[in-house]
Amino acid sequence: MAVNINCDMGESFGLYRMGNDEAVMPFITEANVACGFHGSDPNHMRKTVELAARHGVRIGAHVSFPDLAGFGRREMKIERAEMANIVTYQIGALKGFLEAAGVALNHVKPHGALYGVAARDEAIAHAICDAAEPFGVPVFGLSGTLHEEIYTARGLAFRSEFFADLDYDDAGRLIITREHPARAAEAVAAQALRAVRDGIVISTGGKEIPVRAETICIHSDTPNIAEIGKTVRSALAEYVDPT
Amino acid sequence: MAVNINCDMGESFGLYRMGNDEAVMPFITEANVACGFHGSDPNHMRKTVELAARHGVRIGAHVSFPDLAGFGRREMKIERAEMANIVTYQIGALKGFLEAAGVALNHVKPHGALYGVAARDEAIAHAICDAAEPFGVPVFGLSGTLHEEIYTARGLAFRSEFFADLDYDDAGRLIITREHPARAAEAVAAQALRAVRDGIVISTGGKEIPVRAETICIHSDTPNIAEIGKTVRSALAEYVDPT
Amino acid sequence: MAVNINCDMGESFGLYRMGNDEAVMPFITEANVACGFHGSDPNHMRKTVELAARHGVRIGAHVSFPDLAGFGRREMKIERAEMANIVTYQIGALKGFLEAAGVALNHVKPHGALYGVAARDEAIAHAICDAAEPFGVPVFGLSGTLHEEIYTARGLAFRSEFFADLDYDDAGRLIITREHPARAAEAVAAQALRAVRDGIVISTGGKEIPVRAETICIHSDTPNIAEIGKTVRSALAEYVDPT
Amino acid sequence: MAVNINCDMGESFGLYRMGNDEAVMPFITEANVACGFHGSDPNHMRKTVELAARHGVRIGAHVSFPDLAGFGRREMKIERAEMANIVTYQIGALKGFLEAAGVALNHVKPHGALYGVAARDEAIAHAICDAAEPFGVPVFGLSGTLHEEIYTARGLAFRSEFFADLDYDDAGRLIITREHPARAAEAVAAQALRAVRDGIVISTGGKEIPVRAETICIHSDTPNIAEIGKTVRSALAEYVDPT
Repeated sequence: MAVNINCDMGESFGLYRMGNDEAVMPFITEANVACGFHGSDPNHMRKTVELAARHGVRIGAHVSFPDLAGFGRREMKIERAEMANIVTYQIGALKGFLEAAGVALNHVKPHGALYGVAARDEAIAHAICDAAEPFGVPVFGLSGTLHEEIYTARGLAFRSEFFADLDYDDAGRLIITREHPARAAEAVAAQALRAVRDGIVISTGGKEIPVRAETICIHSDTPNIAEIGKTVRSALAEYVDPT
Repeated sequence: MAVNINCDMGESFGLYRMGNDEAVMPFITEANVACGFHGSDPNHMRKTVELAARHGVRIGAHVSFPDLAGFGRREMKIERAEMANIVTYQIGALKGFLEAAGVALNHVKPHGALYGVAARDEAIAHAICDAAEPFGVPVFGLSGTLHEEIYTARGLAFRSEFFADLDYDDAGRLIITREHPARAAEAVAAQALRAVRDGIVISTGGKEIPVRAETICIHSDTPNIAEIGKTVRSALAEYVDPT
Repeated sequence: MAVNINCDMGESFGLYRMGNDEAVMPFITEANVACGFHGSDPNHMRKTVELAARHGVRIGAHVSFPDLAGFGRREMKIERAEMANIVTYQIGALKGFLEAAGVALNHVKPHGALYGVAARDEAIAHAICDAAEPFGVPVFGLSGTLHEEIYTARGLAFRSEFFADLDYDDAGRLIITREHPARAAEAVAAQALRAVRDGIVISTGGKEIPVRAETICIHSDTPNIAEIGKTVRSALAEYVDPT
Repeated sequence: MAVNINCDMGESFGLYRMGNDEAVMPFITEANVACGFHGSDPNHMRKTVELAARHGVRIGAHVSFPDLAGFGRREMKIERAEMANIVTYQIGALKGFLEAAGVALNHVKPHGALYGVAARDEAIAHAICDAAEPFGVPVFGLSGTLHEEIYTARGLAFRSEFFADLDYDDAGRLIITREHPARAAEAVAAQALRAVRDGIVISTGGKEIPVRAETICIHSDTPNIAEIGKTVRSALAEYVDPT
């Protein structure tokens, strides 16, 4: 399977700007589009869908806890059925814009705190599956977590995501940060290439950790994201399916 | 064309209850389901879609200005492109639940202040068309208004709605009220039948006003809505297509 | 110290109604007024403050997690400084209406999930103190919990609240329910009187559990709340300070 | 009376940034702090109040229509009593942070669309007065408008605001723009000085228009706001009361 490069997109809200979508769109193959629950609004969703479509970038729903004020980075205790409904709502809202643009839904990716909770909480992992299942698209997540286990057990497609611009600790756990400072583009690209080609990441403690990288995530609110996008795409050229 | 009976549904929000959907669903043929912008939330949308589906009731998106605190009854000045995006978002969100339930979208109906503005403001009338058009479904509105004119001129389907439980003034204008007190069910049914069979409504001043009633609206937050629904359905029995 | 009877008030939102504030206000001495984060809005806050003022009922801020859709009953993971700011905002908003009505702030009471978290999470207990301290008013809570311990250690006033219309388990823990069905008014009044006069509650398992009841809580969304309020007030007549 | 320099402040929301408050605070005498209805949130309100207090800048409530998604720049049709309550809520919320910081409320300023509507709609002008009156502080507005007329007729304090970084047309009307591009600091300062010293502004058509400048507004989201602030403050040095 060819590797993909994905990026969280369309997170601006009203007059507030977040990320540099125009700059990075040429270099990715999958856009995770915010659905208004942690960022974005109907205007930015339309704009982002059209931007991605122009670049032939596949589009997924970047679904979140209902928490615009916290950018979806605060955990909430929500029951399975309610969480599934919240995710269904967001997928549907995005699909509205996709249908208007004549584009298909490609995947679902939980955002922020929901991504983390889905990796360790059975009810929430199931809730995301419950919502994604009728749409017949894969869900992105961290391999080796409860989320993958549950999704796979249900016979659904799971895409193992690797973060090229974040660190992993010696136990192989992703180190999530609230903000994304600039990173050396070459180092990010090297981390991506090593994951795709060799299946390993060098942890913060210098260990070689096995990873599975089916889609590579980079963050559009990193200041030098355009350079990062270009460098990563170039490094992965032979592994990426451009169609 | 057979006449339909429609009702605004699924307007509860969280622990807050509005309307008596269970009681009236057996008697209607079209449910206008709130999409979270004036009422409802993902839980109530799921529940309402499933309730309507169980009764074989066709489902439309009841789209609104973004105004939960005002129940969509406060006018907002929003430009055409933004309004279209706001409507697309809501239609999409509802379609998420429809797809999960395996049901098709039947129509779009503007709610509250948006309904009124669409009848007299060109940009907003167009905005609703812009949003509804890609979904290929008819829009409900008041015949003889700008909304009908614009929609029809664009070659789209318009359904003329008649309000069985509201009054019309001598100029034929609908008198919209903030709350819906109980009404004599027989009188509501008689008003519905007269509109469907004879194409007229008796105004508050006693005049006979010509009307076009393709779908009859009743309000689920009227206290005696179950009785009204039953009586209207019975009165219109020969005109309603139950399939 | 005289005992108080408090009730959660002003939880309606827009057109949505919750509780029967008019009916119960004559029988209580303290109103916990919602501040718009789990229920209420500026209109209902104004109305509730004026209603309480007319009855000479003291008014406190009923502060919540920011979660209108969940009625403040879903836990959120929020850091101390942010939580304190969220509470300050709500207290201030209520004080706006109090100042306009010429009435003083009497107390602060956490609502729903925040009430529960404050009883066991140090950071959140501190956050509520951080916010309440500058206003120099007592905070309501469950005696024997972390919240009381922290608040008292900081030299601040804590009021031990007793729930007359909820059950306590054999370990003395309050059993919080999502909805509040009708209860026999005499039983509620007896539970209140026993707590105030004898300092005990009979648990669900029939045990006598020691309790400290400085203010007695009843819930305005219980269907027979007016009868309950009247009966409780009458039973506690000699313990309540009516001024 | 000494002239003031005011600036809209604290309009960031969650992770979203707006304006450059730290850079401009040293040069102004009055901060209009957003109250969460068009921008800001409890964290940013706390931070902004503390920043202003450190610089000895007086603090007013920058009140808005309830429209975070539209940054308060979309008109809404809201009745007088409700609008007054919405403003009271915001003033109160800000006062919560002011009380915690031991600082007094200095003024009230309507924001965006509310500012414009207040200048021409009697009910809304009254609503703002209704809300501000109990707090005994002046309201900012455009002189020569309905807002000034109504406020003055009610015996309340009105402060005539002059915009140093916006244009006025030949009829003396302020030209409000959605975004605030960079402006030559010297030109802004000259416009401010001319208004304060000579009581005139040069319109876009080159006319001398009489103006009354009691407080000079500059916008913190203008890219070169720090330079503008410094230059304006310097130009007005002899007219500004630094205490």
